[in-house]
Order: sequence, then structure tokens, then C-alpha cells
Amino acid sequence: MNSKRDIVLTEVALRDGSHAVRHQFTVDQVKSIAKGLDDANVPYIEVSHGDGLGGSSMQYGLSLTNEMELIEAAVAEVKQAKIAVLLIPGIGTMPQLKEAAGLGVKMARVATHVTEADVSAQHIAYAKELGLETVGFLMMSHMASPKKLLEQAKLMESYGADTVYVVDSAGALLPHQVKERIALLKEHLTANIGFHAHNNLSLAMANTLAAMEAGATRIDGSIRCLGAGAGNTQTEVAVAVLDKMNIHTGIDLYKIMDVAEDLVAPILETPQEITRGSLVLGYAGVYSSFYLHAQKAAERFGIDSRSILIELGKREVVGGQEDMIMDVAAELSKRKAEVAV
Amino acid sequence: MNSKRDIVLTEVALRDGSHAVRHQFTVDQVKSIAKGLDDANVPYIEVSHGDGLGGSSMQYGLSLTNEMELIEAAVAEVKQAKIAVLLIPGIGTMPQLKEAAGLGVKMARVATHVTEADVSAQHIAYAKELGLETVGFLMMSHMASPKKLLEQAKLMESYGADTVYVVDSAGALLPHQVKERIALLKEHLTANIGFHAHNNLSLAMANTLAAMEAGATRIDGSIRCLGAGAGNTQTEVAVAVLDKMNIHTGIDLYKIMDVAEDLVAPILETPQEITRGSLVLGYAGVYSSFYLHAQKAAERFGIDSRSILIELGKREVVGGQEDMIMDVAAELSKRKAEVAV
Repeated sequence: MNSKRDIVLTEVALRDGSHAVRHQFTVDQVKSIAKGLDDANVPYIEVSHGDGLGGSSMQYGLSLTNEMELIEAAVAEVKQAKIAVLLIPGIGTMPQLKEAAGLGVKMARVATHVTEADVSAQHIAYAKELGLETVGFLMMSHMASPKKLLEQAKLMESYGADTVYVVDSAGALLPHQVKERIALLKEHLTANIGFHAHNNLSLAMANTLAAMEAGATRIDGSIRCLGAGAGNTQTEVAVAVLDKMNIHTGIDLYKIMDVAEDLVAPILETPQEITRGSLVLGYAGVYSSFYLHAQKAAERFGIDSRSILIELGKREVVGGQEDMIMDVAAELSKRKAEVAV
Repeated sequence: MNSKRDIVLTEVALRDGSHAVRHQFTVDQVKSIAKGLDDANVPYIEVSHGDGLGGSSMQYGLSLTNEMELIEAAVAEVKQAKIAVLLIPGIGTMPQLKEAAGLGVKMARVATHVTEADVSAQHIAYAKELGLETVGFLMMSHMASPKKLLEQAKLMESYGADTVYVVDSAGALLPHQVKERIALLKEHLTANIGFHAHNNLSLAMANTLAAMEAGATRIDGSIRCLGAGAGNTQTEVAVAVLDKMNIHTGIDLYKIMDVAEDLVAPILETPQEITRGSLVLGYAGVYSSFYLHAQKAAERFGIDSRSILIELGKREVVGGQEDMIMDVAAELSKRKAEVAV
């Protein structure tokens, strides 16, 4: 194993994967997985509720275990890896970030919708003040033009972010779109550029390679694909692919494969396949939380839920605008009736 | 739906997917899936034992149902789709091909190891004589240099193949390697160029896009990823991705998604995930049939089966050379003992 790192990977199974196990991680699971990842020389391990610090709630799903307890357990297990947390301003708070830092967390990833970087200003500044390595995390990046994305990334950099991530939350970006976005950021930012993929269109690995080719030096992976939707770039597979390309992650291939198979696979609640549900979300480019709403609306108006989701994607409807789902369904239903006449 | 086809897809779930269900397809399953695919306007549907005509045997796995019966059932269900068969000379025979043609098959795909195109001469000529559209199928393409691959592809073309496929049987190729190979064939052949991917390295979609970019006009897909190893390019996902790229497959997206979810997902015996097993096969670039042999050898010599597979890949060991597995294991074990001393 070559421990030099050409590319720095953050493992997100203990955060993004929290969605895939309905936030039911136990202390023992987090301990054994964090230890396994650390042994395999993974540099960063993110541990939080799927929606970040403070995510445990009726709205976002209650965690089985207080995430501070999970974070503490992970910190205690690792020798070289750094523990990271996700913080979405509005869900998580600065006192929670302080508490996490006190537990030994070394990196804060402050996430906002791609057009709302301005709400991260205080949190990024505070993370830096706490001495944390700080990442700005631009979610649903496919919903902004490259120009808009650059503007928002620059904001995050100006607040103090050491790294800015392009986050393909819906798994909706195509490789050429990733390349264009990353290249633009690389050209205009001095911060590190990162990329976080989802596999809804079976493009997580392709997009990760495209991002690296365009200058990203940070990537996210989830071991055994344990992440929301169809999962992320599968960590152990990425390590194998990059190894074949002679790009050093510093991660031990056999060990990471074993963590995937022996520790993570047994706790999967459902297989991480690309189902009709995850595919349509990636195709439409909408929030996964819209899925059930669209199904209800489809039933009520006797139309296909996919048509609703695709229309919501076209209109660039964002979280918080769930009211629009019924409106869109009603409209599509009316349009359909007119065509039938 | 736009029925113009910029790219022509062959659905392989009823052939390559036969491996994934241990060759236990029933007539009813083949009927309902073939009908669904035909309704969705899939142009070609391959139906055969996983190892092609005549594959049903102790060595390759016995089929539940005589494949001629499955082929006949598929032919009877389709209105616009053409039924294809795979034929590996040495496993399948010319009389079997004749029988399949008599049942209404329209396309023969004649497959050989990438360096053995010469054994396809008679079979390709005979398929043409039978009036079948004919494909030369170069398996384990990662094991030949681009130059060697071109030489072999030219042979198949000279025998009369209408299309030559680059087949990444082990899922071992990287996108730039696919691009290089397809571009070279495109430059020197007049036959259509096709590409068949496997997803062992999570690159099936990336490689399919790379192939198309370099000039391939035929691609293979398996619905719900139902194929050997980690499966192939997932058909319904490919249809969605190409649609987003404004490339017309002529396939109805909603209908193909429904076939995947409602007809294929329920018959999956194990989820089509990338496991430790399929990953190491793709990484090493070896035949899946080596996997169990390597595990036995590993146990006997007290070494990691992955190291055996990787060494076999480096030495470019091919099917029929299974004896070498124990030799390699013995050698690695000895080397390990010497290092320990």
C-alpha cells in the first residue's frame, strides 16, 4: 500500500448512509465500522444524522442513538482518521457544532441549498473559530447554472471554507456537466474543490472520475454504497478503480473491501440497487422527500407520479415548496383531460 | 416517445441474466419479460443460456427449461422486437443455430475469446447463410491490446459480421481504455461497432457512454442489472441517461422502468450489488469461473484468494488453464514464506 494520497476521500456511510438505515445506527455498529475504516487508512469519516447535526426529529427521522454519542464512539476508535460532521444551518446549530468539536471532531461540512450559500456565513466562520477544517457543501448543485454555482462557491470561500464541494444530491448530473462545473470552480477558487455523487443514474463513479479529471482533489464515497437514494460512489470500488488508474487514495484495498463485505453489508436494510424510485428522482432531479408526496398526488388525480416529479424538476421546485406538488398534479390532470377531449 | 433510434440497444437479461438466476428461467417469465420489452419498443432481445446455445450442461449449469422452448416463447410474444441468440463455437453448434433460426430468431451473436476470432469464421458465415443479422462478439476484450483487438475485429468483419462488439466480460476496462479501443475499430472497420459492459467496477454506464462517444452505435443493457457478476449496464437507467442527453433509443422510459420493477425485480435471486466477489473479479480482470477455484486454493495454501486472482489476471490466464490456479497459489505461498523468513 502506498500511503501517499493523490486524492482525499471522505467516507459518508455513517452520515449519508444513516438515511438508508432509517437513522438506526447503534454505537456498536459505528464503533466497528469506524475502526475498520481507520485501519484501512481512510482519512475522513463523517458521522451525523443523515440530515446533519440536529437532524433527529419527527420531520427528518428520529435517530435511535443520540448522534453525539455516535460521534464520541467514532472519535474513540480512530487512530489516524479524522471525524467530520455535517451541519445544515436551520437544522443544526452552532452550540451543537461546538459540542461536536469538544468531542474531538476535526472537520465541519456546512451545507446549504446551492443557491443559498449566504446562510452558511456565520456557521463557516464559527467552525473556523473552533479550529475545525471547514467545508462548504453546495447541495442540489444540478439546480444552478455553472455561473451561479461559482458565485455561491465564492461566497463560501469568502466566509473561510477550506474546501468547497459540488454536491449532486439527487444524482442528476451527467459527467460533462460535472466536468464543466468543477473546472470553473477550479479556475476561480483557491479553496480545494470536492465532489459528492449519488448513483441514481448509475453515474456516481463516472461523475467522480469526471470531477477528478477537472481538478477536484476531494471526493466522497460510501462503503457498500450505503447512502440515500441509490447510494453514493461506492468507496471500496472507487479505491479499486483509482488504484488501477495509478491514483493513490492511501486506502488499503483488501481492508476496505472487507469492511464493506463483513461489517456494512450485514446491516443493509434493503439492497443498494437502482430502483424505479431512485431512478425517477435522479432523472427528474428532485428531492427524495418529494417522492411520497408525488405518489399521493398521483393517486388523487389519477396520473403517473413520475410525470409529477419530472414537472417539479422542470420547474426547479425546492424543499419547502411541497404545496406545489398538489398544484402541479392538478394541472397535469387537467392538461391530460383536455388532450383526451 | 421518439421512436427514431440514435443508438440501438440489445437487451441481454434473458441471456446474460440467465447466470444470475442459475439458468432457471421459466417459459412464463420469458414470455412476460419479452412482451414487456417489446411493448417498451426495445429493438433486440437476446434469449439463450448464459453461455449461449447449448450451454445447458453440467459444466456451465443446467437450464430449467430447454432454451429452444424459451426462444420460441419469446418469438411468439414480440411484435416489433427481434430475438437474438448467443453462440459460442465449441459450446453451441451450427445445427442449434439452424434450429433457432427456424424458430424465428433474427440475429446471431457469435462469441469468442478476444484472441480467438478465427474460430468464429464458419459460424459467422453460416449465420449469414441462414439470413440472420450477425454480430461478432469479442469476449474478455481487456485482455488484448487495442492493436490485437483491431486485428481480431477485422477477422470477424472479413467473415461477414455486420457488427463487431467489444465485450468487457470481466467489467475490467476503464473508460479511457474503452474509448481507445472503440475509436480504433471505428476508424478501421465498416461494420457497426458495439459495446457490452459489466458493472464490476461500477463503470458500466461510464464505459457505455465512452463507447458511444468514440463511435459505438450498438450497446447492450440488462434490465434491473440482471446479468453475470455485478450485472451489465442497467437498461432502464441507460434509457433515462440517454434521454437526458437527447440521444434517442426509441425505448419508452416509463414502460421500461415498469418492466424492471414489476417483472424483473421480483425474480432476482440476489440483489445486483457490487460485492467483494464481483469487485475482485473486475479488479483482477479474470473469469468469474476462477473465483471458486481461487478460494479453494487460498484455503489450501493459507493465502488470500484475492492475491491469487490478481496474479492470474497479471499473467493473463484464460479459461481452460484452471490448473494454473493451484500453481500460482503454491508460488505465492512460497514467496510469502520467504518474505516471512
